[in-house]
Amino acid sequence: MSIIIRLEMDRSNGSFGNVASVVSEAGGDLVAIDVIKEAKDRTTRDVTVRVASQSHADEVVKKVSSIRNVKVVHVSDRTFLVHLGGKIEMRPKSPIKNRDDLSRVYTPEVARISQAIYENPDLAHTLTIKRNTVAVVSDGSAVLGLGNIGAKAAMPVMEGKAMLFKQLAKIDALPVCLDTQDTEELIRIIKAMAPTYGGINLEDIASPRCFEIEERLTEELDIPVFHDDQHGTAVVILAGLLNALKIANKPIEDVKVVVCGIGAAGIASTKMLLNAGVKNVIGVDREGALVKGKPYAHKMWEWYAEHTNPNEETGTLSDVLKGADVFIGVSAPNLLTVDDLKNMNDDPIVFAMANPLPEISPELAEPHVRVLATGRSDFPNQINNVLCFPGIFRGALDSRATKITENMKLAAAQAIASSISDDELNEDYIIPSVFNQDVVNLVSKAVADAAHADGVARKL
Amino acid sequence: MSIIIRLEMDRSNGSFGNVASVVSEAGGDLVAIDVIKEAKDRTTRDVTVRVASQSHADEVVKKVSSIRNVKVVHVSDRTFLVHLGGKIEMRPKSPIKNRDDLSRVYTPEVARISQAIYENPDLAHTLTIKRNTVAVVSDGSAVLGLGNIGAKAAMPVMEGKAMLFKQLAKIDALPVCLDTQDTEELIRIIKAMAPTYGGINLEDIASPRCFEIEERLTEELDIPVFHDDQHGTAVVILAGLLNALKIANKPIEDVKVVVCGIGAAGIASTKMLLNAGVKNVIGVDREGALVKGKPYAHKMWEWYAEHTNPNEETGTLSDVLKGADVFIGVSAPNLLTVDDLKNMNDDPIVFAMANPLPEISPELAEPHVRVLATGRSDFPNQINNVLCFPGIFRGALDSRATKITENMKLAAAQAIASSISDDELNEDYIIPSVFNQDVVNLVSKAVADAAHADGVARKL
Repeated sequence: MSIIIRLEMDRSNGSFGNVASVVSEAGGDLVAIDVIKEAKDRTTRDVTVRVASQSHADEVVKKVSSIRNVKVVHVSDRTFLVHLGGKIEMRPKSPIKNRDDLSRVYTPEVARISQAIYENPDLAHTLTIKRNTVAVVSDGSAVLGLGNIGAKAAMPVMEGKAMLFKQLAKIDALPVCLDTQDTEELIRIIKAMAPTYGGINLEDIASPRCFEIEERLTEELDIPVFHDDQHGTAVVILAGLLNALKIANKPIEDVKVVVCGIGAAGIASTKMLLNAGVKNVIGVDREGALVKGKPYAHKMWEWYAEHTNPNEETGTLSDVLKGADVFIGVSAPNLLTVDDLKNMNDDPIVFAMANPLPEISPELAEPHVRVLATGRSDFPNQINNVLCFPGIFRGALDSRATKITENMKLAAAQAIASSISDDELNEDYIIPSVFNQDVVNLVSKAVADAAHADGVARKL
Repeated sequence: MSIIIRLEMDRSNGSFGNVASVVSEAGGDLVAIDVIKEAKDRTTRDVTVRVASQSHADEVVKKVSSIRNVKVVHVSDRTFLVHLGGKIEMRPKSPIKNRDDLSRVYTPEVARISQAIYENPDLAHTLTIKRNTVAVVSDGSAVLGLGNIGAKAAMPVMEGKAMLFKQLAKIDALPVCLDTQDTEELIRIIKAMAPTYGGINLEDIASPRCFEIEERLTEELDIPVFHDDQHGTAVVILAGLLNALKIANKPIEDVKVVVCGIGAAGIASTKMLLNAGVKNVIGVDREGALVKGKPYAHKMWEWYAEHTNPNEETGTLSDVLKGADVFIGVSAPNLLTVDDLKNMNDDPIVFAMANPLPEISPELAEPHVRVLATGRSDFPNQINNVLCFPGIFRGALDSRATKITENMKLAAAQAIASSISDDELNEDYIIPSVFNQDVVNLVSKAVADAAHADGVARKL
């Protein structure tokens, strides 16, 4: 990786030769020096240095700072540089070249368009950006692995998501980071801003607030609302599982699945598994296996216990994993042991997706499983939401769906799975790459078809 | 102008030759025929026709509709076509070409940027779109001359505004049309969404709600809030007046100004005139001249009566116009007569900006005034907000201003006026064209300087 160190230096009392040799001694590779400002007695320069890692970078910067008469103003690495001024921009689709153009896109002619929409609000889908625009909404309460870091700090994630929406599915996504974490307030705000949008992508909102918000908005709005952390994850897990079961040659109705971590993603994944035909799912959280009849703190856990674990198995993760065919982890690092794997059924399938460290290290697990998937890009079979949200929203917008139904999600999972042909399918390739160009088309078409079949499409 | 007529035709019972001759008989110029769909017995085609006017278009369409076996599916003119799918789009500033790019702009590397902003929220100005992004917010309650047409119907106007922000001032503007007209709710929503933005442009929000909303947001947010219908109009009026007074050779302190229409724009304009040095402003609304001591329904009118009309003149518009140097109309068509103009002081200056029909028709007024300005583009001296909002926000964003002060607005007006040199200045050229490239630079620089002078700038 590269870093850029901005230095201020007293001209009379030192030279850049000195800086260069300190960088070199510290093992850094000096790539470029750019003059930023020259004053009579002081000079400001940007020094680009290639380093091996963040800790190496810190070491180089520390050594440079210790040079007398040199002041390190700030240090940027390539990740910081790509974020300068933000990662997305709003642009006119056509330039305003003359008075004629101006009077068409703005006053006085625009009044005719506004009047037409006022008389027939459905025209908003045709005559405004609504047709192709999704809000990426967060309250900053559960951002990546960082937790409750607030609205401002959530912005870079939402901007990144907007980039992916556009690049992968040609959808215009606008980041909306809201400085409130009150459920009712969030619902009111999102409802009020809905006229602009053709869909709402909820993102990085803490559980259990996320359930209520999504449910209420789905009821009260006529555009699709989709909490990606729940359903995006669930769709891609199911896609991977469908292919993994093909390899293990096990019918989905017969497998025993243990889901570890019954939060937003765990619950949504379980619902999808049940919808896809799995009969025996057991959820495990801190208190062990969820089983009906026991009292639970969360309403969602009560629902979960009621609808899963048909054999009413009890005990720890290790207990219920005995004889299981599939482990799905959306929990925490290192909860799974090699002994657990050995106690599973033949050809065990393990999706260990805790982030950044999986439930079991891939190196440890690999010899004992038939198929292994993680959330990481440095191992095979990465379960990544990027495979789902662009295509599912593309399909929803294209069919002008009023909501995203269970069948639309199921269709998305099947489409992702289908992007790998039987010839290609193997233990290390159950899920397509995020750069696979076919996925968005396959998913969007399947989703639009399902929207029509379910009667939620408003457009052929 | 051109229109596109989509026709459905029974193939067996007619020909396009028939359509062509009907178009031609009606005086239309047939430009192109595009086949949209061919079925066995029916055909759908788009016929592009050049016509002289909207009424001519209606006539052509009526004649075509009356052809037997021809059905007019719909008619689009160029204004509708330019609005198809909306006028703006969100784009990544750089493409995601590979896994390295992806991990920098999205997970896992984006977490470092979010963490940095969490630790130092000021970094949002550097590392997100905040630095260059303005919300264009409307509740759809006072859209153009159309009135309370709601959030969806307001969108085309806000999109047009976003186009102008980008093209003229390189600002990324996001339309925010809100489906509520409750003052407190609007304030809460705009506050909650503020983290994303470097500024808030309020637009087409009805009076008196607009005053409270702007005032409260200015107090409670640390980014500039600017109601364009008030202050944009006021700034451009003052700019025009400064130049008109040069032509009439009258010092601003000595003139008597009558403002007709004491709504949002009238009040803001009056405040700017007072700030710029005018001593004698008289406001006139339906009840006649506003004068202190009388009870008024609106709080704003009470303020107005208290702070203007030093000689406590009473009566109708015609009464108080006697001896006035300047008429500023932001009211309704045809309130002003030629006799009124004759009763004004020598070299009268008349800004008749009622839309779309001015307070007096320019043809009638012209022989009796020294300088005439209107809101229309088909006469000289168009008073157009487009001259103000791009530059004032550019200056506010560049200086990272916390608010837009009176001095910043005054500086903007002076900068707009200064874009016309003394050599160029004449009765028909007191205000620059909206396509004048210099205006944004002049205004933004003056506004940023004023922000520094007023101590509201956070960036050099």
